[in-house]
Amino acid sequence: MKTFFDCIPCFVRQTLEVARMVTDDESVQERILRESLRLASEMDLSQPPPVMGQEIHRFVRRISGNSDPYRDVKRRFNHFALTLYPELKRRVEQSPDPFMTAVRLAIAGNVIDFGVSADVEPEEVNRSIAESLTQAIDEAAIDSLKEAINDATDILYLGDNAGEIVFDRLLIEQMPHNKVTFVVKGSPIINDATLEDACETGITELVSVIDNGSDAPGTILESCSEAFRRRFEKADIVIAKGQGNYETLSDMDKDIFFLLKAKCPVIARDIGCEVGSLIVLKKRRR
Amino acid sequence: MKTFFDCIPCFVRQTLEVARMVTDDESVQERILRESLRLASEMDLSQPPPVMGQEIHRFVRRISGNSDPYRDVKRRFNHFALTLYPELKRRVEQSPDPFMTAVRLAIAGNVIDFGVSADVEPEEVNRSIAESLTQAIDEAAIDSLKEAINDATDILYLGDNAGEIVFDRLLIEQMPHNKVTFVVKGSPIINDATLEDACETGITELVSVIDNGSDAPGTILESCSEAFRRRFEKADIVIAKGQGNYETLSDMDKDIFFLLKAKCPVIARDIGCEVGSLIVLKKRRR
Repeated sequence: MKTFFDCIPCFVRQTLEVARMVTDDESVQERILRESLRLASEMDLSQPPPVMGQEIHRFVRRISGNSDPYRDVKRRFNHFALTLYPELKRRVEQSPDPFMTAVRLAIAGNVIDFGVSADVEPEEVNRSIAESLTQAIDEAAIDSLKEAINDATDILYLGDNAGEIVFDRLLIEQMPHNKVTFVVKGSPIINDATLEDACETGITELVSVIDNGSDAPGTILESCSEAFRRRFEKADIVIAKGQGNYETLSDMDKDIFFLLKAKCPVIARDIGCEVGSLIVLKKRRR
Repeated sequence: MKTFFDCIPCFVRQTLEVARMVTDDESVQERILRESLRLASEMDLSQPPPVMGQEIHRFVRRISGNSDPYRDVKRRFNHFALTLYPELKRRVEQSPDPFMTAVRLAIAGNVIDFGVSADVEPEEVNRSIAESLTQAIDEAAIDSLKEAINDATDILYLGDNAGEIVFDRLLIEQMPHNKVTFVVKGSPIINDATLEDACETGITELVSVIDNGSDAPGTILESCSEAFRRRFEKADIVIAKGQGNYETLSDMDKDIFFLLKAKCPVIARDIGCEVGSLIVLKKRRR
């Protein structure tokens, strides 16, 4: 997906939120804001939005001297999600269709996205969980995901955010684990999950976990490691979680199932859904 | 008032709205957006927000080749306000305190501000009128405005937007007309009233009207004509209408009564009120 004009004011607003989060020093906030405006004035709009996000956050980390500004946020949501895990696991197992329920919950967890808003609260996660269990969803697409998983021998599951990956774990537990490789980011970017989060939440004990070698808030293949790119090419199917992965992979010539909560109007328009929808979307190999 | 960080994302959003209003050509919209980002990246934040607004809108007019993009909007709201005028005039005259009611209505009209949002609708104006008649307001400040008007011999009334000036007319009709000079902008800027609007709405038949020689969405004295600056200096009291005049004159060493509806969170915070409040604010000569 390309970057739309409406993404630009949103970048600027997000950058200001981030600047205030990483420092109380107004002169540093101002430098971050000015540099993001300069970057935005020159950006290549044919690229997906995470290209800009990657640049801005590299700059934020460099100028603030903080290599992982969201470390505390990530830890807090990993722990919060782990406290929910036993009850959610029970719900999945007692549900008439555990796979369907696990998909719904995995998407509910996608609300833990500090790229969209700098103040996600646990109450919002609880609300998202409650809504997800009854909200409309494309059940045929879930059936076709289930079939594709059964037919595949090599499944790549591209994770999104810390905390959210506990919800992904519920879904992965409904798959044949030995077929699944879970992917995290190569280094800190917003609150996206890295290897540290995969360890903290026990995913590493369930399936094999690799990192993609990149610090983009999505999957920009050119920014990923050669090893990851080979792994991506080889996979039978890819399950791509969250907006960032949709934005960067939606035009890709590959069998990808996108699972996300459509949280922004630009993505909702691109998909053709309402903001807040639960999305299970198969993009076919062209 | 200086420009706050929160003004910047708002500038960018407003610019995108304006770009879409002045042209359907996406390449022109993109040029406008990129140039505004570049300007914003270099702006002097110690200046009030209208300095940036002036620069952006100059650029919009130049690149779109449209010297008055809001001409239709201004005409539409002049006519709309004139259809309301007889009923509003009746309300003022039948009110127990006509001056107070006229002040409330003058402020209600300040909702016709295309600098804040690119889609003001007549319904919003009707709602603003209805609310203004019962909303909390600083009655002591209104009394002190009334006194100051009685004591003054030379009153300068700085108008704000087209359409809104019909509401100002209701208030000016409650003053000794011969003391009042009404001020409009020197040339088109957003939907701010110019001489054309003063003629269209009959203000020119009521009081003497001058223009300030400037295309800023507020009163930036350095940007005004020498003649206006002398007139401003000479006035006993100044009545300054709207956010733009507050932003540019709130730190001025002069007896100014600001009348406005606080429509944005930054101004509401600067004044110390809620968004949506009716403001009658006397800034004393220091």
